[in-house]
Amino acid sequence: MRILVVGASGTIGEKVTESLASRHEVFRAGRNGADVSVDIMSPESISDMYKTIGPVDAVINASGGANFKSVPELTPELNEKGIESKLKGQVNLVLLGQEYMNDYGSFTLTTGVMMDDPIPFGSSAAMANGGIKAFVASAAIELPRGIRINSVSPNIVQESWDRIGHLFAGFTPVPAEHVARGYLKSVEGAQTGQNYNMY
Amino acid sequence: MRILVVGASGTIGEKVTESLASRHEVFRAGRNGADVSVDIMSPESISDMYKTIGPVDAVINASGGANFKSVPELTPELNEKGIESKLKGQVNLVLLGQEYMNDYGSFTLTTGVMMDDPIPFGSSAAMANGGIKAFVASAAIELPRGIRINSVSPNIVQESWDRIGHLFAGFTPVPAEHVARGYLKSVEGAQTGQNYNMY
Ligand SMILES: NC(=O)c1ccc[n+]([C@@H]2O[C@H](COP(=O)([O-])OP(=O)(O)OC[C@H]3O[C@@H](n4cnc5c(N)ncnc54)[C@H](OP(=O)(O)O)[C@@H]3O)[C@@H](O)[C@H]2O)c1
Ligand SMILES: NC(=O)c1ccc[n+]([C@@H]2O[C@H](COP(=O)([O-])OP(=O)(O)OC[C@H]3O[C@@H](n4cnc5c(N)ncnc54)[C@H](OP(=O)(O)O)[C@@H]3O)[C@@H](O)[C@H]2O)c1
Repeated sequence: MRILVVGASGTIGEKVTESLASRHEVFRAGRNGADVSVDIMSPESISDMYKTIGPVDAVINASGGANFKSVPELTPELNEKGIESKLKGQVNLVLLGQEYMNDYGSFTLTTGVMMDDPIPFGSSAAMANGGIKAFVASAAIELPRGIRINSVSPNIVQESWDRIGHLFAGFTPVPAEHVARGYLKSVEGAQTGQNYNMY
Repeated sequence: MRILVVGASGTIGEKVTESLASRHEVFRAGRNGADVSVDIMSPESISDMYKTIGPVDAVINASGGANFKSVPELTPELNEKGIESKLKGQVNLVLLGQEYMNDYGSFTLTTGVMMDDPIPFGSSAAMANGGIKAFVASAAIELPRGIRINSVSPNIVQESWDRIGHLFAGFTPVPAEHVARGYLKSVEGAQTGQNYNMY
């Protein structure tokens, strides 16, 4: 398969790419992508990426951010990063990518455990994650030509523990390699409309 | 209690207002609100509304829209209504309203059955609804001074059946009065972080 991985250089994206590269042709994307550059916050940039890569059998997104702020500190402006990046960035990868997707291809987006198990400072990220999960379930019933769509909800990963583990008191971190299997199940399996909890 | 109802003139908002008016002081808001006007798509307008009304014990939102389009027809531009109105409009009612909320007061937002039980043309609305549900669960753990937050997920209501019932094949519509009880439970009850499925 021709597989486009957005966020391929990230903690999770790297393991996803590793797990696919031996069997598939993988295109690594990101703002400084090794094969193609894209900023998912810009619809124009997303369209340019698809024009460059052409038809694909799978699109995986393992990028997208949100500001971490407590609700009393969160402003409409600070909430914009989650809206523009993790939420709209991912939705637009689907809306603008559907015409480049081959029959029976798949989209796999990323949510996150904080939508189910709230953490301090996580409301903006939870908002984006919950939006993606519901979008995926709904889009699955309408995508044409056998195209599938799923999301993967990573638990806090071991490799990120030093950076953000203090926000995840009492969580058991999982290896990024464990999370990567959710993307594999989405791409090489046959399910659609699912959110895989890799907890 | 001093209760602000945004969308008070709507199908659901009217029943919510009716069920509260005998026991509480209710302020009816909307673009053409009987007591105060607000466009939830504008943060400035939301701030002006709160300045006009002053401290409140409860804020209920029963407004917010999204475009109904199939995924192949949905564009980033058409998805903006759901983002700006149903999603950001509701989140901003909380972010900008928290300083006006009295101790132990409550916010009650609106989601919708299509986030759980996908319907054709509903992906943009589902996205917004799922975002609100996850935001509510997460914001509940951080709102200060005993302030609570919940959402109500209306089933398709009988009063809306002629207008949108064709999208809800096989659903059993419920009276708007039934849905209104979810808002009552949120405001007069003591729970937080919940999404009440009024199905
Ligand atoms: N790590 C965790 O424990 C954890 C837990 C739950 C959920 N998640 C979610 O999983 C996803 C990946 O997390 P991660 O920790 O692997 O991230 P990461 O290590 O920070 O990597 C992010 C990747 O995305 C790319 N990227 C960043 N912004 C971009 C943009 N605007 N447009 C295109 N590409 C962009 C980066 O490359 P460039 O710099 O070249 O753009 C990089 O490849 C995120 O959505 C995150 O919220 C992670
Ligand atoms: N009806 C259903 O079967 C159903 C099912 C599931 C979910 N829902 C959700 O429940 C909520 C209410 O639905 P409804 O059917 O009662 O709606 P509705 O009858 O169309 O009423 C909408 C109300 O919101 C106000 N409004 C609209 N846009 C606004 C804006 N930008 N800023 C402020 N106020 C605005 C309207 O008053 P003005 O015109 O004066 O602004 C009106 O009071 C919506 O979020 C809807 O998605 C409804």
